[in-house]
Amino acid sequence: MLIDRLVNRITELSAPIVVGLDPRLDQIPAYMKEKAFDKHGRTPHAVAETFTQFNREIIDQVYDIVPAIKPQIAMYEQFGAKGIEAYLQTIAYAKSKGLIVIGDIKRGDIASTAEAYSTMHIGRADIDGESIEISQSDFITINPYMGYDSVEPYLSDCKQYDKGLFILVKTSNKGSKDIQDLILANQKPLYTRVGGLVSTWGKDFIGEHGYSNIGAVVGATHPSEAVELRKSMPNTFFLVPGYGAQGGSGKDLKDLWAKNYGAIINNSRGITGAYQLTKYQCGEKDFAKASRQAVLDMKADLEAYIS
Amino acid sequence: MLIDRLVNRITELSAPIVVGLDPRLDQIPAYMKEKAFDKHGRTPHAVAETFTQFNREIIDQVYDIVPAIKPQIAMYEQFGAKGIEAYLQTIAYAKSKGLIVIGDIKRGDIASTAEAYSTMHIGRADIDGESIEISQSDFITINPYMGYDSVEPYLSDCKQYDKGLFILVKTSNKGSKDIQDLILANQKPLYTRVGGLVSTWGKDFIGEHGYSNIGAVVGATHPSEAVELRKSMPNTFFLVPGYGAQGGSGKDLKDLWAKNYGAIINNSRGITGAYQLTKYQCGEKDFAKASRQAVLDMKADLEAYIS
Repeated sequence: MLIDRLVNRITELSAPIVVGLDPRLDQIPAYMKEKAFDKHGRTPHAVAETFTQFNREIIDQVYDIVPAIKPQIAMYEQFGAKGIEAYLQTIAYAKSKGLIVIGDIKRGDIASTAEAYSTMHIGRADIDGESIEISQSDFITINPYMGYDSVEPYLSDCKQYDKGLFILVKTSNKGSKDIQDLILANQKPLYTRVGGLVSTWGKDFIGEHGYSNIGAVVGATHPSEAVELRKSMPNTFFLVPGYGAQGGSGKDLKDLWAKNYGAIINNSRGITGAYQLTKYQCGEKDFAKASRQAVLDMKADLEAYIS
Repeated sequence: MLIDRLVNRITELSAPIVVGLDPRLDQIPAYMKEKAFDKHGRTPHAVAETFTQFNREIIDQVYDIVPAIKPQIAMYEQFGAKGIEAYLQTIAYAKSKGLIVIGDIKRGDIASTAEAYSTMHIGRADIDGESIEISQSDFITINPYMGYDSVEPYLSDCKQYDKGLFILVKTSNKGSKDIQDLILANQKPLYTRVGGLVSTWGKDFIGEHGYSNIGAVVGATHPSEAVELRKSMPNTFFLVPGYGAQGGSGKDLKDLWAKNYGAIINNSRGITGAYQLTKYQCGEKDFAKASRQAVLDMKADLEAYIS
């Protein structure tokens, strides 16, 4: 099962780390941008080309030391159809290097619409009898605000194609308090209730390590809430954003670990933008090598607090 | 202001109706599919071409009797980059016919990511000094589960470019009860709290008719909840899904109307798939004419209950 493959690969590499591939134009080395602008002008086409190339070089440097990458689709979508092409090419390249891919799409909509999203991201499109895989992602992130019938179509594709979800429970941003922390009539915060729903939805997808293909997004920036959720969701694997640029550190995560880690920690800018930090002291031609070093540094930071 | 243009156009046409353009392959007339498959094979390219053509013909038949269209991006996104092209072409064509466009994207993510979504859908991309408008939508729908800082970037673009939002409050699907109806410590359901947040977020965007560019999504399938929200959100314009195929009717909406309507009702399949209903008795060549008739029938159904 997918979740077992993820757990096994994390254990083999001692790296509960996912590299967030969220390219921004101001992170792309100048020489790469100039070449693309010369060819295609200052267009979405040129931007998409730099994103694909930037990601490929980072993947080449990290595929042997991390189990997974997580492209944030918004960063690609903002450049329209050409951006979506770069998103799909990035995923295809990562898969060709043996990486597990978490498509960070955070979609959430009613049943018929959820079916369409699921078709693209983890299912297969049926074009008059022709079955086509549009995206090769293994996991995707989704938003639960619309309830069970907005999640169910994804569960069907997870079952059919051995795919997985990470459902938003308690996110890493400050504003997550506005709705997720609202106190319910039972005196508990809303996110604990959502956590309970996610556990229930994942019951039919549990692999040999005791974790489900249906995971939860739980931010690194709220350590006490994360630990509380860890206890109440023993069969749920966590995708943890908020490490690095958003403020979370290895120390914040020390009480989060469970059997076989139980969580994978995302770092985006801290890895892909490492070459721009004085700490790594390298020219932009070596941007991907700096990313590799940033992964190794993150691994050491996490290990210091894993008991 | 955008919301005034929407209210004025609804009033001019006596049509608080938005046509949902959510194409499905099984709705596309056979002659249109065959032509595209002959040209491009059974590919996303072919599908995208039929979607664009199908939408153009419907727009040609309805642009003079409704104020707005609402493409559901999932239906396009499921066919990858070519699908996104069809989505953007549909919006551009609707704008060229003077329609207001509501991009039904239901995105929701942390600040830097929300900025990227906003850039694509209601803002402008900056490519090394070149400012590019990727999508021409006027309004978009968004998901509030991640809180204020996930909404704020859209508000900035709404201010700068006179654009608008419809934020999910109480959706039309059955599963909306799972989270949106949870009872808070103050004994009120969660969606009333979200409604309050949406009103607050919209305070700086109120136009001459007393409505804000920042609206709410409130389903037609929960009439009593909708009426309650109507009373507590007097300055918020409602986008109401759930009419027609999802079960809502003019009668369900009778107590929802306010000054200048206060709401716009979406109908997707009931209009675009009208030609497939025995009621309209027409061949597939006349699919768009059936859509026009379905709009007129919906208008009559609503009017019968507007006091």
